[in-house]
Amino acid sequence: MAKVEPPSGTRDFVGDEVRRRKLAFDRVSTIFEHHGFQPLTTPVFERLEVFAGKLGEEASSLIFKILKRGVHEATGEADLALRYDHTVPAVRAVVTHGSRLSLPFKRYVIDNVWRADRAARGRFREFVQCDIDIFGSASPLADAEIVWAINSGLEALGVKQFVFQLNSRLALAGLLEAYGIPDELGTRVLGSLDKLDKAAPEVVVAELAERGLTTTIAESLVADVIAPDSERVREQLGTTERGRAGLAEVDRLLALTEELPAGRVRFTPRMVRGLDYYTGPIWEVSAAGYPGSIASGGRYDELVAKLGGPDMPACGGSIGLERILAIQEAEAPTEQGLDVALTVLGAEREIVSLAGQLRARGLRTAVYLGSSGKLAKQMKWANEQRARWVLLYGPDEQERGTVTVRDMESGEQSQVTFADVAANLAEGMASKP
Amino acid sequence: MAKVEPPSGTRDFVGDEVRRRKLAFDRVSTIFEHHGFQPLTTPVFERLEVFAGKLGEEASSLIFKILKRGVHEATGEADLALRYDHTVPAVRAVVTHGSRLSLPFKRYVIDNVWRADRAARGRFREFVQCDIDIFGSASPLADAEIVWAINSGLEALGVKQFVFQLNSRLALAGLLEAYGIPDELGTRVLGSLDKLDKAAPEVVVAELAERGLTTTIAESLVADVIAPDSERVREQLGTTERGRAGLAEVDRLLALTEELPAGRVRFTPRMVRGLDYYTGPIWEVSAAGYPGSIASGGRYDELVAKLGGPDMPACGGSIGLERILAIQEAEAPTEQGLDVALTVLGAEREIVSLAGQLRARGLRTAVYLGSSGKLAKQMKWANEQRARWVLLYGPDEQERGTVTVRDMESGEQSQVTFADVAANLAEGMASKP
Repeated sequence: MAKVEPPSGTRDFVGDEVRRRKLAFDRVSTIFEHHGFQPLTTPVFERLEVFAGKLGEEASSLIFKILKRGVHEATGEADLALRYDHTVPAVRAVVTHGSRLSLPFKRYVIDNVWRADRAARGRFREFVQCDIDIFGSASPLADAEIVWAINSGLEALGVKQFVFQLNSRLALAGLLEAYGIPDELGTRVLGSLDKLDKAAPEVVVAELAERGLTTTIAESLVADVIAPDSERVREQLGTTERGRAGLAEVDRLLALTEELPAGRVRFTPRMVRGLDYYTGPIWEVSAAGYPGSIASGGRYDELVAKLGGPDMPACGGSIGLERILAIQEAEAPTEQGLDVALTVLGAEREIVSLAGQLRARGLRTAVYLGSSGKLAKQMKWANEQRARWVLLYGPDEQERGTVTVRDMESGEQSQVTFADVAANLAEGMASKP
Repeated sequence: MAKVEPPSGTRDFVGDEVRRRKLAFDRVSTIFEHHGFQPLTTPVFERLEVFAGKLGEEASSLIFKILKRGVHEATGEADLALRYDHTVPAVRAVVTHGSRLSLPFKRYVIDNVWRADRAARGRFREFVQCDIDIFGSASPLADAEIVWAINSGLEALGVKQFVFQLNSRLALAGLLEAYGIPDELGTRVLGSLDKLDKAAPEVVVAELAERGLTTTIAESLVADVIAPDSERVREQLGTTERGRAGLAEVDRLLALTEELPAGRVRFTPRMVRGLDYYTGPIWEVSAAGYPGSIASGGRYDELVAKLGGPDMPACGGSIGLERILAIQEAEAPTEQGLDVALTVLGAEREIVSLAGQLRARGLRTAVYLGSSGKLAKQMKWANEQRARWVLLYGPDEQERGTVTVRDMESGEQSQVTFADVAANLAEGMASKP
């Protein structure tokens, strides 16, 4: 075999990498539990048709598809797909279990999603998202609950300065209307506006002109949506019904989150979310020191019906944990070693028995499993394992009925009766922090 | 959409189902940590060729394959596959990260694997396995460490009477030799013997005769391997070199596990493991009240080299958690409700603020998000959420600056100053168990 790497865009995690990730997952899940969300997990794959027409063209091209099995494999056709996000599977599950769930239903999940994006530094094909969704509530309180929970999740992860950039699909529709942009150009115009967080205004103006807007309209639209205050946009939105409704959505959500730190939630008229399924308020979170957005969400009132369910309002949000972990890993490496390393100098059955006693008392214990009978080599192994204590039970100890205990911090050695070693070290464990 | 079920053989998990599973995972992972195993996780999929020739024919036909992406999708070809077990991906990871790992390396993982088995009651296509492996040790102590850790894992999961049925690939090869069975018949003969845990002896004898054995040999082979004691098999194994070596393997492992409860590990000459990669001791665990085997493992000294790595001895085992959870779920349902349910009778901003304070003190809190302004309907929701306390903040309370706190256990109501509610309930939480 030539290549023995994990597949492109995926990673193995070993030891403390896994523990550090689990700690972050547990922190966020505790927050979501405190906010009254219920865990709901779905399979890693769904029927292919579950995703059809839900995500938009770009996202759909990034789905990992699974070949039919058995005799159908030869057709080369796929019938299943790895989940692209947690929202579509959650909607499918809500449709499946509708009658079991008490509505409004609040769910969370912290698990992998898969996207066949071009692999790049910090961009993965398998990555964890922390998702929350509320089904069956049209109340602005539900949108606010999502923002509050995501806010607490980000704080629990140690992210300091961050901003929810808030907008509304309705407001965007009203904005296009106010500027006299025909419906058939809408999606592409919004696609261009979405680039304003990275591209220079004149680049976007040129692109809009290419797409069929007059330069005057393109220039005033771009100038208005990137203005530091939103006054001009607010004025324009006031001229259409959808614009007024969208602005009202934005303002209610601003009011319900005003106890968050000042400036935490900001009306950002240029903000457009890529996914097709949003219908109401939408938001993205950017943070100082983190590339791109670290969280996003919005309201998607039509998705449940699209998946064969009843007409059911819904909203949600997710934290893109990987970008946060990537920054923090560099900052805070932690290491966890063994409590006890047991050398093997004969008497294997007694060693195995001693290991059992130590583990029964909750001590992380490993037995030397290499081929060397030399103590120096075994001590080297114990050091690599970052063991706190190393135990020796050679011929002398066997004769005396004792075990030599070496404290790897102090370097001190002591003799302890074989029968007392486990209790003795468990006590030492409890007394030293 | 006609079907809104999860894909065949897969499941959604909601609320306490997820919490109960997580509790079981955490219990087992604590045990593995105490035994000095390091967590190592791999992606859900591997390059297809990683599995080629490692699993055997039957297993290979059950692999979920992933279609190539982008322009290559049209070829109908697969290049990735969901993991069938944790062993092959672990071996790939050890080959990938060899230089980073200190050998012998002990890993564990508790996560899903996927097999396109015919879906049936209690048999799933997505299911969790708890895996441990030791790389780089040829010592019988390593095999013993695996058995001890799996034993502790099963005990931690509450399984009571269970037995490790122990055998050895070497012993099986020696047995065939002793009975004069030619090498080319070996695999199929072992396949027939493997059915002896379910099929009647005469059925297996007939099948062996069909496969080319004389009836005399078939009868004496079957009689010997199912005999309640292993004396005849031990005698036969003594007549060949491989047989003696296999028997020595078995006896050393029996000696190193003799402190386990009596009868916990038993030499079981008829036991054959299905997977192709085993080379040394093999075992399966059966338990009273559980169908099939609930754990299995063995030594696979050639797999690392097969995957492009160095010549490296290895052994491992896994617990099939689903069968255990399926039995125990029926036994021990647990339920976790909300701590606080907040009704909404106006004053939404104050309610959101109060929710924030309660959550900051660690209370599982939810706000009513339905459309009804009627208290009766909101109380019904609070009941469904199994809330311990329900808070009311209607016009009267707003005027007084208090909150009505209803204790849902006692049915008692009290008035608490708005500013004191969070502290008050957090205290109540701490004092009541």
